[in-house]
Amino acid sequence: MKKERLFTPGPTMVPEDVLLEMAQPMQHHRTAWYRQMHEELHGLLQYLFQTKATCLTFTGSGSAAAEAAIVGCCPPGHKALVVVNGKFAERWEKVCATWSIDHTALPIDWGHGAKVADIQKAMDADPKIDTVIVVHSETSTTALSDVEGIAKLTRDRGAILIVDGITAVGAIPVKMDDWGVDAYITGSQKALMLPPGLAFVAVSDRAWERIESGKMPTLYNDLKAYKKSLGTWDAPYTPAVTLVRGTLHVLRGVKERTLEGIWKETSLLAKATRAAAEAMGMKVYATDVVDSVTALLVPEGVDEGALRKTIRAKHGFQIAGGQGDLKGKIVRLSHMGYVDAFDTIGAIAALELTLAEQGYDKIGLGVAAAQRVFAEDLK
Amino acid sequence: MKKERLFTPGPTMVPEDVLLEMAQPMQHHRTAWYRQMHEELHGLLQYLFQTKATCLTFTGSGSAAAEAAIVGCCPPGHKALVVVNGKFAERWEKVCATWSIDHTALPIDWGHGAKVADIQKAMDADPKIDTVIVVHSETSTTALSDVEGIAKLTRDRGAILIVDGITAVGAIPVKMDDWGVDAYITGSQKALMLPPGLAFVAVSDRAWERIESGKMPTLYNDLKAYKKSLGTWDAPYTPAVTLVRGTLHVLRGVKERTLEGIWKETSLLAKATRAAAEAMGMKVYATDVVDSVTALLVPEGVDEGALRKTIRAKHGFQIAGGQGDLKGKIVRLSHMGYVDAFDTIGAIAALELTLAEQGYDKIGLGVAAAQRVFAEDLK
Repeated sequence: MKKERLFTPGPTMVPEDVLLEMAQPMQHHRTAWYRQMHEELHGLLQYLFQTKATCLTFTGSGSAAAEAAIVGCCPPGHKALVVVNGKFAERWEKVCATWSIDHTALPIDWGHGAKVADIQKAMDADPKIDTVIVVHSETSTTALSDVEGIAKLTRDRGAILIVDGITAVGAIPVKMDDWGVDAYITGSQKALMLPPGLAFVAVSDRAWERIESGKMPTLYNDLKAYKKSLGTWDAPYTPAVTLVRGTLHVLRGVKERTLEGIWKETSLLAKATRAAAEAMGMKVYATDVVDSVTALLVPEGVDEGALRKTIRAKHGFQIAGGQGDLKGKIVRLSHMGYVDAFDTIGAIAALELTLAEQGYDKIGLGVAAAQRVFAEDLK
Repeated sequence: MKKERLFTPGPTMVPEDVLLEMAQPMQHHRTAWYRQMHEELHGLLQYLFQTKATCLTFTGSGSAAAEAAIVGCCPPGHKALVVVNGKFAERWEKVCATWSIDHTALPIDWGHGAKVADIQKAMDADPKIDTVIVVHSETSTTALSDVEGIAKLTRDRGAILIVDGITAVGAIPVKMDDWGVDAYITGSQKALMLPPGLAFVAVSDRAWERIESGKMPTLYNDLKAYKKSLGTWDAPYTPAVTLVRGTLHVLRGVKERTLEGIWKETSLLAKATRAAAEAMGMKVYATDVVDSVTALLVPEGVDEGALRKTIRAKHGFQIAGGQGDLKGKIVRLSHMGYVDAFDTIGAIAALELTLAEQGYDKIGLGVAAAQRVFAEDLK
């Protein structure tokens, strides 16, 4: 027997009860059943984003929803600052370029998160900037941005803040209203432990003013249509009904476990993984580490491709490699969703076994260090 | 016990084995597993559309894919003719208007399909028209367009033909290459008997020339990115993996049953339903009837809202009403996907029982007429 365990930072493992919830007989979406589900889902999404704002459900990937939010919030006459610190941040800059949105890119070193001082400097230098786009948890580099601090700055300056929260929301602290974020985006296949296919955008009143001032030159991705349909708890276009049903099921569980509880659990898994890495002599890649995903530098002399291939083929663990310049240099392990201490200990054990095959023998060291972290937490 | 049976023209019923196939443990999409699946899926989509053209898989509703196809095929300098004969045709006109695509609407009576003569006249009157947009099976009115004839005309004139095949593909004859259609669109939740969330676009070489000549001002819906990713059987953005898996499962079955067989079965269900209606004294609404969905005019004195409410509450059949001007006037029954003769006889029986409650008693007449059609076919 070889069990498969997904440790990739999305898609993540989907709980068995969620898979079966989504395997229930098909239901139509123009029904009281869907409207009731949508209304309850909306309340739970507000809890997830910690907001009283409107929360929109898109059928599409996180990129579709992020594109809709960026284009909606940046009609002509506005200027965006995009902090570029990884593959996903690069994509949002590409959205601005594709749509001819007036924008400036602020490149920062990979592995670092967006910081208040850099953004403040860029805004001081160019007073036309009235929109800031940052990635909360840059999945490609596992770097954490200071969204709370940046939101304070953008509120003080009357600017709109758009945050890609795709591997942040539901995994690490996200407090949209307390912080003052204007558009927060996430996807179904990360901390929400669902298959890919849905994306969610929470939109503040300030962002709606901006969005409603401009004409959105697209039909399917026009946020206004989604907002309008919320009035009757409908969807403007046929939604991915089974995934919506699964999301409701997951979010009921999230509320029961509480976000604070989940943030703490995720953080503990990340802490244990980092402790294991240190004990194994492996370096954590990111400078500003996030708790939803951990990137580890592959030790000298170890072949990253062979490592990932073997750990999957022999032990059933799927871990991610690096993207772009980081290809071949790092491996990434997710701490999001349906993953617990013993899955994580298993992943570390499998990593040790696989590294040992390549002559890098630290068997037992990482596992013990991770166990110590969990033991400490039990006290 | 009350079984639920979806007779709405999408979403349609999903077979139990497909539900369970999609409930298998989550798999990652940046893997050999996904690429193999995508390659096999592509071949089966080519079979489905009866084409050698590239077939793209979108995560989103059919509207998202249709928008992408229309915008991609109509860069500045081109002019579209949109035949408007129902709610979905209206939506494609709205796409043109939203994107400021130079276009002319050709309104024809609802219940009628697009015809060669009307399009020829419009093209003669305006030689700038080099793109034609028609709905093959207009779900809102159940009208069938003469796509074969129209494609001959557009080929002769060197124009591009975009066809909304959302309730046509996999239900009624569709022969993309034989006819010469340039972009054919369908969705997962109709004849493919899957949940909503995926859409498919087959794109001819002629259409690619047009698409590649223009700059597509959107990231997510840029067909070029989907084509490029086909080179490695990848997806440009995270796809709805479970639905892709379900589609492969369905299309293997479609190929086994053969399209010709499925077209014949669908047509027989429609014929039986029309015969039942006639025996019950109910009129078929459409003039150019399509075989994927049947619209029946509600008899004088019968309340359509109460009819649909009761047939669902008492008997578990979900049928559709009319949209727009047809609201309250028609009911629609689907013949697509996972529905057979006995489901259809059941729906007719339930319709009879519900109509009788409102004083319109034709009990047994429709069922017998439908049975006769099936008996004739068994000979």
